[in-house]
Amino acid sequence: MSARFGARLLNENLSLNVSKNVDFLGWYKQLVTKSELIDDYNLPGFYILRPWAFSIWESVQKYMGERFQEIGVKNISLPLFAPFMDKLEERYEDLFLNTYFLTHAGKDPIKHSIAIRPTSESLVYSDFGRWCKSWRDLPFRINHWSNALRCIENPIPLIYSREFLLQEGYSGFANREESIDEVYKMLDIYNNIYSDLFAIPVLKGRRSEKGKLKGSDFSTSIQIIEPNNGIGIQAASSTHLGQNFSKKFSIYFDNPKNPGEKEYIWLTRYTLSIRSIGALVMTFGDDFGLILPPKLAPIQVVIIPVGLDNCRNEKDKFNLIKNIKLINEKLKESGLRAEMDIRKELKGVPIQLEIGLENLISRQISLNVRFYNEKCILCLDNLASELKVLLKKIQSDMLKM
Amino acid sequence: MSARFGARLLNENLSLNVSKNVDFLGWYKQLVTKSELIDDYNLPGFYILRPWAFSIWESVQKYMGERFQEIGVKNISLPLFAPFMDKLEERYEDLFLNTYFLTHAGKDPIKHSIAIRPTSESLVYSDFGRWCKSWRDLPFRINHWSNALRCIENPIPLIYSREFLLQEGYSGFANREESIDEVYKMLDIYNNIYSDLFAIPVLKGRRSEKGKLKGSDFSTSIQIIEPNNGIGIQAASSTHLGQNFSKKFSIYFDNPKNPGEKEYIWLTRYTLSIRSIGALVMTFGDDFGLILPPKLAPIQVVIIPVGLDNCRNEKDKFNLIKNIKLINEKLKESGLRAEMDIRKELKGVPIQLEIGLENLISRQISLNVRFYNEKCILCLDNLASELKVLLKKIQSDMLKM
Repeated sequence: MSARFGARLLNENLSLNVSKNVDFLGWYKQLVTKSELIDDYNLPGFYILRPWAFSIWESVQKYMGERFQEIGVKNISLPLFAPFMDKLEERYEDLFLNTYFLTHAGKDPIKHSIAIRPTSESLVYSDFGRWCKSWRDLPFRINHWSNALRCIENPIPLIYSREFLLQEGYSGFANREESIDEVYKMLDIYNNIYSDLFAIPVLKGRRSEKGKLKGSDFSTSIQIIEPNNGIGIQAASSTHLGQNFSKKFSIYFDNPKNPGEKEYIWLTRYTLSIRSIGALVMTFGDDFGLILPPKLAPIQVVIIPVGLDNCRNEKDKFNLIKNIKLINEKLKESGLRAEMDIRKELKGVPIQLEIGLENLISRQISLNVRFYNEKCILCLDNLASELKVLLKKIQSDMLKM
Repeated sequence: MSARFGARLLNENLSLNVSKNVDFLGWYKQLVTKSELIDDYNLPGFYILRPWAFSIWESVQKYMGERFQEIGVKNISLPLFAPFMDKLEERYEDLFLNTYFLTHAGKDPIKHSIAIRPTSESLVYSDFGRWCKSWRDLPFRINHWSNALRCIENPIPLIYSREFLLQEGYSGFANREESIDEVYKMLDIYNNIYSDLFAIPVLKGRRSEKGKLKGSDFSTSIQIIEPNNGIGIQAASSTHLGQNFSKKFSIYFDNPKNPGEKEYIWLTRYTLSIRSIGALVMTFGDDFGLILPPKLAPIQVVIIPVGLDNCRNEKDKFNLIKNIKLINEKLKESGLRAEMDIRKELKGVPIQLEIGLENLISRQISLNVRFYNEKCILCLDNLASELKVLLKKIQSDMLKM
């Protein structure tokens, strides 16, 4: 690979006008919008997730879905409205002030105001007991992919917004040992998704007494430390609820060894949210835009025709475009996520191929690697396999950053 | 295959106490709960989708997701709150009375009451214009998998509930011909998902002037006619919005042939909801429970150990269980969704294998096919491939019903 080529990027494509080093939050807010991850919305603190962000979230869902399936976690869907927050007073003491309440259906006022879920905990606990009656049902594992709403101050898109997408998993066990195992098993899954997909090294561990989820036995979490400024972001958590909530919500099974004896179920809760994408942007983004790890990038390789204006005649032009289309098709057939002709450094596509007539003759392709900010040359005839090697290298180099 | 064997089912496993022929709606409501598709919730008209239903919905999402990807539809995520329903007065005139409104965040009243989306139309239209500025962006296709809420009277689970899951797709085109093509292309996709996955033959066609979506040019829809009682259910719709909404929301592009000239974008909308699962239950369910088509069934084959009590000694018992586990593993390895030991006719598993010691010796397995209500015999040594053939046959026979 050739030498660094940062200068090219700097001059050509600078559409962010705030620097990461100067105003971190200003830079971040500008980047997530300009890179077309999200769009602002008519209500402050709410955002639209555009295809570029949602596609990354779908990769997260797919990865987690496979891990969940391996260990028997089953997905459910829960109502948006929560009429019984009062049963979780410890937990909701803080949340109450941030909760949206509903009062009207059409023109008619609703008798008792209804909460819009700030979390799905209360919804799950109130039904867990009906689904789990016998020791034969244990362990019992369910998960909910959903949106939750909190009317928080000073929202930050993706990181801390008023509506956010998340996964909330709940498991129940016959004894304490198994439920503690589950807490750490889920923490490992979160650790792996960050190192494997996001290419972000994380800190994992038990939180302090003060930092634990209220009403729980203990909480563990994944922390991402932003290399730029040392800010820590909680990127996922896995909590041992113990028997506190099962006692409150009457979630028990009959002890098979001692018929008639109630055993309260040991519960855990584990959650990862769309904040993970915000943390990704903060970790790798620079003043030119996003940098996405190859495994998560919706487009891995973008191909740009160059020198179209210099083509001597229409036949040359036609020939160039035709050949680029063929190259694009070949890359796609080999399983790479490739696209033609969108020049967007900002959006964080890992590899940008530039192809002109001379490249077709010399059979050598010039490419920019977003993460290295470097140009290099690959052989056209073996392009797909060389690109695959390069994408793997980028993925692992990002983790080492 | 041997003769019909309905009598066995009738005596053994009748836990529904309402007959489909006597009280269709009573039967339906009992079935969706007892088959563990859904669970009732503390708020009337709201339901929890349990893993059995949600897994079917995930198959629908996967199938539609693949079709969408083929034609370039991209997924997005939109906020739950809609502050600008007034711009769609024609469309929302009916919906208004069924819309939930929000008035409080924590203890503080909200100045202008905010609607909870009864559909995502207004959310999409208000942003479409910003995303689609040039003819180069066309055709433009986005889709939203979400929940929507309507405070309707007389809710029916899955078919007509107060909160429901759905997919809403929106496409934009430079001219009328292409947008009309799109309407019928989507209608065909819906037709195919019903015949291919659900094994339900449908009627498709243009709706009457009165039946079309308000404010649109014309609507087409998929109708399922329940064989039992001739009731028709709208199972999906694809609508030509024309330029009505694009004029209202200023969604246009600059005509490349006539610079400075505004061309309003031609819009379409297509939607399919969780109601599809309700229609499936109504179409195939019987007095014994659900009947699920093999392609949609979360479990395709359930294996039941029989004669455990008759085993002569512990060694025989151990041997039987061990062998059944091996058979189960083999089926799973060959790609079948198989499970051991849950005896649930109600839940609609297509094939139920019964295995006892004699079967291990004779190498012949007895099985019940849920759709035929028939027993038949297969050879143990070639089980996976014979089951695959049988599942295919069930899927196509269900469509012919």
